[in-house]
Amino acid sequence: MVNTFFEDTIAAPATVPGTGALTVIRVSGPDALRVAGNCLQLSSGSIESLPGYSIHYGSFVNEEGELVDEVLVSVFRAPHSYTGEDSVEISCHASAFVASEVLRLLCRAGARMASPGEFTRRAFVNGKMDLAQSEAVADVISSTSSASLRVAMNQLRGGYSSELRSIRSCLVEIASLVELELDFSEEDVEFADRTRLSSLLDEVLAKIDNLASSFRYGNAIRNGVPVAIVGAPNSGKSTLLNALLGDDRAIVSDVPGTTRDTVEETLVVDGILFRFIDTAGLRSSSDEVEKIGIERSYKKLAEASVVLALLDCTSPEEVNEALISDIVSRINPSSQNLIVLFNKVDIIAPNLNVTLLNNEVFSSDSSAVKLYISGKTGFGLDLLKKELVSSQKAQTYNSDQTVVTNLRHYEALRNASDALGRVRYSLSSGLTSDLLAEDLRDAINHLGTITGEVTSDEILGEIFGRFCIGK
Amino acid sequence: MVNTFFEDTIAAPATVPGTGALTVIRVSGPDALRVAGNCLQLSSGSIESLPGYSIHYGSFVNEEGELVDEVLVSVFRAPHSYTGEDSVEISCHASAFVASEVLRLLCRAGARMASPGEFTRRAFVNGKMDLAQSEAVADVISSTSSASLRVAMNQLRGGYSSELRSIRSCLVEIASLVELELDFSEEDVEFADRTRLSSLLDEVLAKIDNLASSFRYGNAIRNGVPVAIVGAPNSGKSTLLNALLGDDRAIVSDVPGTTRDTVEETLVVDGILFRFIDTAGLRSSSDEVEKIGIERSYKKLAEASVVLALLDCTSPEEVNEALISDIVSRINPSSQNLIVLFNKVDIIAPNLNVTLLNNEVFSSDSSAVKLYISGKTGFGLDLLKKELVSSQKAQTYNSDQTVVTNLRHYEALRNASDALGRVRYSLSSGLTSDLLAEDLRDAINHLGTITGEVTSDEILGEIFGRFCIGK
Repeated sequence: MVNTFFEDTIAAPATVPGTGALTVIRVSGPDALRVAGNCLQLSSGSIESLPGYSIHYGSFVNEEGELVDEVLVSVFRAPHSYTGEDSVEISCHASAFVASEVLRLLCRAGARMASPGEFTRRAFVNGKMDLAQSEAVADVISSTSSASLRVAMNQLRGGYSSELRSIRSCLVEIASLVELELDFSEEDVEFADRTRLSSLLDEVLAKIDNLASSFRYGNAIRNGVPVAIVGAPNSGKSTLLNALLGDDRAIVSDVPGTTRDTVEETLVVDGILFRFIDTAGLRSSSDEVEKIGIERSYKKLAEASVVLALLDCTSPEEVNEALISDIVSRINPSSQNLIVLFNKVDIIAPNLNVTLLNNEVFSSDSSAVKLYISGKTGFGLDLLKKELVSSQKAQTYNSDQTVVTNLRHYEALRNASDALGRVRYSLSSGLTSDLLAEDLRDAINHLGTITGEVTSDEILGEIFGRFCIGK
Repeated sequence: MVNTFFEDTIAAPATVPGTGALTVIRVSGPDALRVAGNCLQLSSGSIESLPGYSIHYGSFVNEEGELVDEVLVSVFRAPHSYTGEDSVEISCHASAFVASEVLRLLCRAGARMASPGEFTRRAFVNGKMDLAQSEAVADVISSTSSASLRVAMNQLRGGYSSELRSIRSCLVEIASLVELELDFSEEDVEFADRTRLSSLLDEVLAKIDNLASSFRYGNAIRNGVPVAIVGAPNSGKSTLLNALLGDDRAIVSDVPGTTRDTVEETLVVDGILFRFIDTAGLRSSSDEVEKIGIERSYKKLAEASVVLALLDCTSPEEVNEALISDIVSRINPSSQNLIVLFNKVDIIAPNLNVTLLNNEVFSSDSSAVKLYISGKTGFGLDLLKKELVSSQKAQTYNSDQTVVTNLRHYEALRNASDALGRVRYSLSSGLTSDLLAEDLRDAINHLGTITGEVTSDEILGEIFGRFCIGK
């Protein structure tokens, strides 16, 4: 019997009952085997005598001994299970009615319904994974591209956590030296060589800032690279969007708690997830309501990593010029990519030689990429997709590099960085070690919240509450 | 190596990817272990050496050796699997992206995507279950009440099939005697005593007719007891329906191929599934369009097992009388139950003593049940539910009795019964044994189509095509 931290046994469906061919119901807790065994007649005998990692065929029966379903039962024994507790997975026919009967009977036998994320929370509390790994479980489930899956997998496997732990243990070492000085403060000794402290600190700070700055990229991987489509009214924004999405529409997961806050159109190209943001048409207007809409478009433009400026080839040149200079003036060239699209090329040049047209585009000497396209006929969209991908490839991190995808982690890293900045200031100003020590502790605590060495019920509740039931 | 009938290996998700906590992907076929092993790095070693009914933790990797997901792998070895073939179940995180990668890589390694019902079809062809049992799988999945589950479970476990087989083998015995006579027809002997044949035949025929007649009940169990709500316009049909459904709305399965043809409101009371059929309001009308709607209401009334005649207490008595006598004239008292509901009792008797009211109802000497109700306040609905249940309890079969729920089986039984009717006629008219033999063979074939001893690709395609993928 392995000691775990929970006394009760929980049960929940791990798949959605009533869809697909089978439903898996999970039971976990110190009483899992007894609870499940109460409802089962197995060909292999009593479940409590069965080894872990084995499967058994049997009958799930109700309180009157009537057959509810013929099931396969997988047995896991603590600590060798997802939660670290004794666990049973019951694989039954995918009937919502059967699943509700199975759950009712398991609860009757002593289990209770699990709350969202409770299995993973137990895995965390029982030391099977740290907090960053737990959060990666949700990220793996909601991953929609190979890039986001790779990052989530790295985090799930603990690569990210071990990097954080090495940073944190370095800080702990610094802090212990400083704390030692505190103990002997009246003797006015310096155990920690200030120059060495300083260079160690710079090293750690660089690592933390590097992780924090990967968040912009990591967030794009996880939630998609934000691409704003801006242009005049009727320049064909919706047609372009539909043509781009076509049948390649990104897989959208509807797992509760893993969906993004706003539903936008996403598209995976070459393993990179792009998130398209439609905007209200830009034009000078005196209408107050329309002005508000246009202000919003500017805001979305400012937040995007890539801006698609959509011009209508059939519009007067001066209109397009005014529009493009307005957009260019609002772009930050160091962090945003601009792609200028001349749409409706099918109207002005129905028989234009395609190669010529594209050559002309690429011989342009402006820094912004310019493409002739037709959302209606699909002309030029392949080139556009290539441009989208290469805009990201330039800033793509090494695939082995750790990338921060989680806002909570990003904020903890920023807080740790701020505290260490104060430590550096104190060092350079020759302040006393008690101030150093306080800020160091602060930084260590912030890093600890990421992997869960430092945590609170509130944080745990918020993290696991966003999981689906059964996970 | 066990011989099976299929040379290729199939794969499909058995749960819907992207919903819930985990996704299970099934692989089955002679190459299942090699195909899955190609994509897996298991801690227990090579999958091909692992025993059946065991679970293994491992990594699912892509063609470049990159981790796609950490998975649990369940191994089943022929013939001890659902399909009777070597099979592998891969339990991965419930990401639609992960599932599509896993399936892509399995297909790359030599599997192909399974078509709907293909796993169960293989189970049938490999002799793991007969056709009636295969159909019961779909029935178990779509079961929505304990009664329908019990019937489907009996069929899945083979109780139904063994009853059919005993009838069929009895017929085969009769037929063999008759066929023997055919071989010796020139010698004019009678191996089969005509009187004994006749009484055997009557026995078999009674059993078949008994099964066939259980279909009306079986169909009600499976698809719900049809309850028509009829009444004048604005008598409160929709309010009543909503009040009845309340929060007790029946679980509706959305498994492709198992949904009922028309979506109607269903409600489970005391383990019995009721299917409520709303109808157009009845009134005499000269409007042609309305007349058509009213004709339809009469048709639904005729098809229902229970008719709820909804009267508006606040309507003039002669209107209600005309309506009720119209409805009564269209009811078949031997097969239909009529419940007369006086609705809107809250308006005419807001403070009426409830007990008195209900006593009054039950002291009525008419054969039809009459209840005062209020769809608006919910008054009387408990009694109505009780009446609905007792209307069915009277005709409830013994729960151990075999019940036919499948239209295909019902038709096969009717055809067998017709053929045996002809045999009986031939016997009583002293016709020659070759005519007897032909009709007997006909009856045996019809019975054989139910369990699949006699079948065709067309029938199989139709049955399994209605399953979901992964089953």
